[in-house]
Amino acid sequence: MCASPASGALRAAVVGATGYTGAELVRLLHGHPRLALEGLYAHSSAGQAIGEALPSLTGHAGVVRAFEGDVDADLVFCALPHGASAPIVAALRDAGRVVLDLSADFRLTDATVYREWYGDHGAPGHFGSAVYGLPELHREAIRGADLIAVPGCYPTASILALAPLIAAGAIDLSRPLVVDAKSGVSGAGRKVRESTHFPETSEGLRAYSVAGRHRHTPEIEQELTRLAGQAVRVVFSPHLVPMTRGILSTVYLEPSQDPAGFTELARRFYDGSPSVRVLEAGSHPDTLWVRGSNAALVSYTHDRRTGVVVAQCVIDNLVKGASGQAIQCANLRFGLPEAAGIDHPAAWP
Amino acid sequence: MCASPASGALRAAVVGATGYTGAELVRLLHGHPRLALEGLYAHSSAGQAIGEALPSLTGHAGVVRAFEGDVDADLVFCALPHGASAPIVAALRDAGRVVLDLSADFRLTDATVYREWYGDHGAPGHFGSAVYGLPELHREAIRGADLIAVPGCYPTASILALAPLIAAGAIDLSRPLVVDAKSGVSGAGRKVRESTHFPETSEGLRAYSVAGRHRHTPEIEQELTRLAGQAVRVVFSPHLVPMTRGILSTVYLEPSQDPAGFTELARRFYDGSPSVRVLEAGSHPDTLWVRGSNAALVSYTHDRRTGVVVAQCVIDNLVKGASGQAIQCANLRFGLPEAAGIDHPAAWP
Amino acid sequence: MCASPASGALRAAVVGATGYTGAELVRLLHGHPRLALEGLYAHSSAGQAIGEALPSLTGHAGVVRAFEGDVDADLVFCALPHGASAPIVAALRDAGRVVLDLSADFRLTDATVYREWYGDHGAPGHFGSAVYGLPELHREAIRGADLIAVPGCYPTASILALAPLIAAGAIDLSRPLVVDAKSGVSGAGRKVRESTHFPETSEGLRAYSVAGRHRHTPEIEQELTRLAGQAVRVVFSPHLVPMTRGILSTVYLEPSQDPAGFTELARRFYDGSPSVRVLEAGSHPDTLWVRGSNAALVSYTHDRRTGVVVAQCVIDNLVKGASGQAIQCANLRFGLPEAAGIDHPAAWP
Amino acid sequence: MCASPASGALRAAVVGATGYTGAELVRLLHGHPRLALEGLYAHSSAGQAIGEALPSLTGHAGVVRAFEGDVDADLVFCALPHGASAPIVAALRDAGRVVLDLSADFRLTDATVYREWYGDHGAPGHFGSAVYGLPELHREAIRGADLIAVPGCYPTASILALAPLIAAGAIDLSRPLVVDAKSGVSGAGRKVRESTHFPETSEGLRAYSVAGRHRHTPEIEQELTRLAGQAVRVVFSPHLVPMTRGILSTVYLEPSQDPAGFTELARRFYDGSPSVRVLEAGSHPDTLWVRGSNAALVSYTHDRRTGVVVAQCVIDNLVKGASGQAIQCANLRFGLPEAAGIDHPAAWP
Repeated sequence: MCASPASGALRAAVVGATGYTGAELVRLLHGHPRLALEGLYAHSSAGQAIGEALPSLTGHAGVVRAFEGDVDADLVFCALPHGASAPIVAALRDAGRVVLDLSADFRLTDATVYREWYGDHGAPGHFGSAVYGLPELHREAIRGADLIAVPGCYPTASILALAPLIAAGAIDLSRPLVVDAKSGVSGAGRKVRESTHFPETSEGLRAYSVAGRHRHTPEIEQELTRLAGQAVRVVFSPHLVPMTRGILSTVYLEPSQDPAGFTELARRFYDGSPSVRVLEAGSHPDTLWVRGSNAALVSYTHDRRTGVVVAQCVIDNLVKGASGQAIQCANLRFGLPEAAGIDHPAAWP
Repeated sequence: MCASPASGALRAAVVGATGYTGAELVRLLHGHPRLALEGLYAHSSAGQAIGEALPSLTGHAGVVRAFEGDVDADLVFCALPHGASAPIVAALRDAGRVVLDLSADFRLTDATVYREWYGDHGAPGHFGSAVYGLPELHREAIRGADLIAVPGCYPTASILALAPLIAAGAIDLSRPLVVDAKSGVSGAGRKVRESTHFPETSEGLRAYSVAGRHRHTPEIEQELTRLAGQAVRVVFSPHLVPMTRGILSTVYLEPSQDPAGFTELARRFYDGSPSVRVLEAGSHPDTLWVRGSNAALVSYTHDRRTGVVVAQCVIDNLVKGASGQAIQCANLRFGLPEAAGIDHPAAWP
Repeated sequence: MCASPASGALRAAVVGATGYTGAELVRLLHGHPRLALEGLYAHSSAGQAIGEALPSLTGHAGVVRAFEGDVDADLVFCALPHGASAPIVAALRDAGRVVLDLSADFRLTDATVYREWYGDHGAPGHFGSAVYGLPELHREAIRGADLIAVPGCYPTASILALAPLIAAGAIDLSRPLVVDAKSGVSGAGRKVRESTHFPETSEGLRAYSVAGRHRHTPEIEQELTRLAGQAVRVVFSPHLVPMTRGILSTVYLEPSQDPAGFTELARRFYDGSPSVRVLEAGSHPDTLWVRGSNAALVSYTHDRRTGVVVAQCVIDNLVKGASGQAIQCANLRFGLPEAAGIDHPAAWP
Repeated sequence: MCASPASGALRAAVVGATGYTGAELVRLLHGHPRLALEGLYAHSSAGQAIGEALPSLTGHAGVVRAFEGDVDADLVFCALPHGASAPIVAALRDAGRVVLDLSADFRLTDATVYREWYGDHGAPGHFGSAVYGLPELHREAIRGADLIAVPGCYPTASILALAPLIAAGAIDLSRPLVVDAKSGVSGAGRKVRESTHFPETSEGLRAYSVAGRHRHTPEIEQELTRLAGQAVRVVFSPHLVPMTRGILSTVYLEPSQDPAGFTELARRFYDGSPSVRVLEAGSHPDTLWVRGSNAALVSYTHDRRTGVVVAQCVIDNLVKGASGQAIQCANLRFGLPEAAGIDHPAAWP
């Protein structure tokens, strides 16, 4: 049963409402006990009926609006591509809005690193002013933040698998960590391209941007390094899997402590984190088990033959990897229960 | 935003909780403002942690219980296979419970027809005592019913496409209506079988039980005949499509009135029905647009070359075709808003 | 085991080699005992290594050439989009080449009908000079043809289901025939578009161009009318199914003879046709059973309740629906065994 | 064009013909210029029409036979589950037949290792008498072998990625190699089980048997150790991907030489190996590019940030990972061109 709302809903807007993360924000906000969706903004679809712009709302009333410098709302979710987001976020922040930015524009804290991976920043005056919106690592900072940079889907899955072990100093960090990540196709967004054309995607599996060329790499290293207090390097290999939603990060690491305690260690680390569940050692979480939900399932398996530990984490890339996590951050920011509106089970099967 | 619950939630139980429609009931009840899930019952999984029995609840607390003749709840959803359902429904009704039965056991009203298609009935004393749980046709009767026979997925999609036209006497019923229906694989249930083994289902498409051999045929004819006041015969051909959820019914009919008004006629018929949306004439609704939602999208297309009208209806077979519709009926039965807890947009994509 | 080639292979070229039907021609010609692939031509990829232009040939040697008015070959397969094909076919025919055209440009025989559905023709001087390349109907004519218009995928499946009954005068043709056809996504070609973007195609099912708006309609009617000796009208509804290959045509008709003999009647009709197999009455052929093969599986089911007969036919849209059929025609034209190079079993699963 | 057969075909039989690798043997032998399929044997389907037992042969003539101690053929492919294969292979060998065994029963050379992973052997008298049927490593031995143990699908993809580097001593073997492998569902065989039920497989991705628990682990280590002349340890993690065919092995290793030369080194290693193609450094081979073909595509990518090299290899698990490889071995054994009958391009898309 849905939690009881107190009186006085908060008014939320979504800018970039017609991409996949925008559509997911609309879906999740619909079921939220305290956040009321007040407006949908999208440049390319401005003026269009929302039911035409968003197939999930076919037949629903309302019109997509153009963003014109500000929106009248208590909080604004920006679900725009990187680069396009920064100036709009800047305008909203200048107007005093609380902003949850789902793009990559404010996730990195080192301007040199940003430039290296993305080029010039679109709002340099605001660079560095955001809190990284991974509640499991930055819960308190998020409560006080007015600009929250919601993590990417791959970093969420990869960091959640590793954070408890790194925080405990339980990993040999002298060597790079291997992060072999697999994603559904919705992670590539709504824009059509040859690589996501159905006949060339179905029954196909491939890596892409292997070997440190994917822009989520510095984000993962930034957060793990912060947590470790020493440089953490990852070999990050994303793969495209013929399914729409879901990410599985399979991480290989050499422990510096007895791995028998890793599951318990992670359970303590995530105690009080409603979205993360640490499964029994040796479990194999399935992306289907979290489809449509904000859950992250984590497990640790020790390969006694080689000494290596395999950490696994599954999420729905559009929920815990994007829109659900943004709402989780908004809940924290406005003093609501962290799981409000995002604690439903997965839509299985 | 989720509707505000009045105080005093109603207590719901699910018997047969570990099949696909059971899992979907658990998911939908979780977000319901007034129905609180009090217990999960499943014979085969009794005693098991619910997170093991239902992957969508991995990590959730609670235990699946054995059904022992009655359950302490205001309303009980029975999500059991046909045949297995009747005696349990009978026990629950004898104990005075309000029952929403998702099986086929109480949908037919003619005992001879039941016997012809299903054989002996498991609770003949209760046969004929149910209201057919299609709110768009039986809204008032459902409000007063204690046993509600929730329709099958194919009948829901097929009847919703045809009902407005039949009610208006706009179809030539002297000939059989052609219902070419296509379903995702979850409609076949959780039990494994060769015909739903992934390698033999993916990249495959086939009809099955063609030509009046599928048990949903008499259910469709019963309801359409009742509405028409004269015998309606359908040629019903179900097809298995390599996707998990969704039904599209494509219906071919010869109009006895000018089809130019069919869209408007259907809009009036479904006025006040929150789950049905009638699209513009010539539209092609997609099952993906309703995935995870209780919506039914209907459209009519007139083939001027031949005079035939093609009616289309898409639903999610597990939601409007089963569990969502059961909740819709429960809402009506208990005086709640008809769409309470089931008015969220689809999980698109 | 592959058939033994006589000495002296025929030299074949493919123009439009980098679309899906082009790729399939390359694959099938590779295993052909008598047709040797001499050159690949494609405007957009001219000069590119074939292994880059065609992923199935990754690592193979050779370069895609530009078409420059003629090609030095015994026969030429044109696998171009409609409209683009006509002028190239005309040039090849003017140069005396035997041409197998997979486009729609030469399939229709009535110029008025062509204009109505496609607009102006790109080579009016050659319009009407082709033989319709469905061997099961035009075997003798194909043997003597220099321009063969290979049928579309939907017409192949639909005509093969109906031809034996129409030829026998066994159908009531006073009413339109209902052809409910379902296709995999490769039928839409290699060009990316929103409607074939993986996340919006997987787990989705929809009709398109319903009610006589699909351009395969006149082609079906032309051939069935020719066979019937009287006008045949069809209501043709194509559907897009989330799989890459395969077409299932489900056809509804009212018999004018006892349908008990339909299976036998079709077996006699297809006697000597190596690609068509007529299954037992009541069978449900699966597209997966013909994936990668040139087989067409046909069945008839009589619905005694309504009198309607359901005819079904499955093919692989890229093989019997396009490239395999083109080779079948070439075999006939050059006096080779009709099934040479295209008689292998399906790639199941 | 298919190669010209010399007179005098060799007569081949398939035992275990109705599983997926059996079906694939039938398909590939059909197009083979020198191997003629003489008989299909399968215990469970004995007496059945082959078109019923194997959907890909629907409508074909012939009957599945029972294996009764021997078969009259020049060579026998055994496509049976491990354990079931050994006694039949022993009988065939005792009768003097050349046997290509696709099971795991004769792949390992160390009886202690066999026992540890599989338990008692079903034909201990023949244990150790086979040649490991990976032509790229054992070409000469295969030419002289009468019992050839065709490798598993995972070992083929994993070993082919690593062999050139290991043979060149280019890898730091002091640490375990990480092999993250992803497979389509057909690798699990034709037997139905919950884990391959379509609704629980589609839109799902999961690892299984992680951390040295999968039986292909010792096979990979055996071959790599043999090649290295020193112990090689691998962390092997298989994953199940929602597609029917294809394996991608992503391997992580630390080079002990400059990786700039790895592509060239591998090209030299595979010079004369018709099935393996080494792509440009940094390429991302796709399983779809080899679907239905015997090709293995290999690439190497150097992550300069961390020093790690990512080796990738894709194959079709049923072809180069099983039946195609068995035919490749048979070709070698009988002095035929190594690629005879298995050199066709992939069935893309």
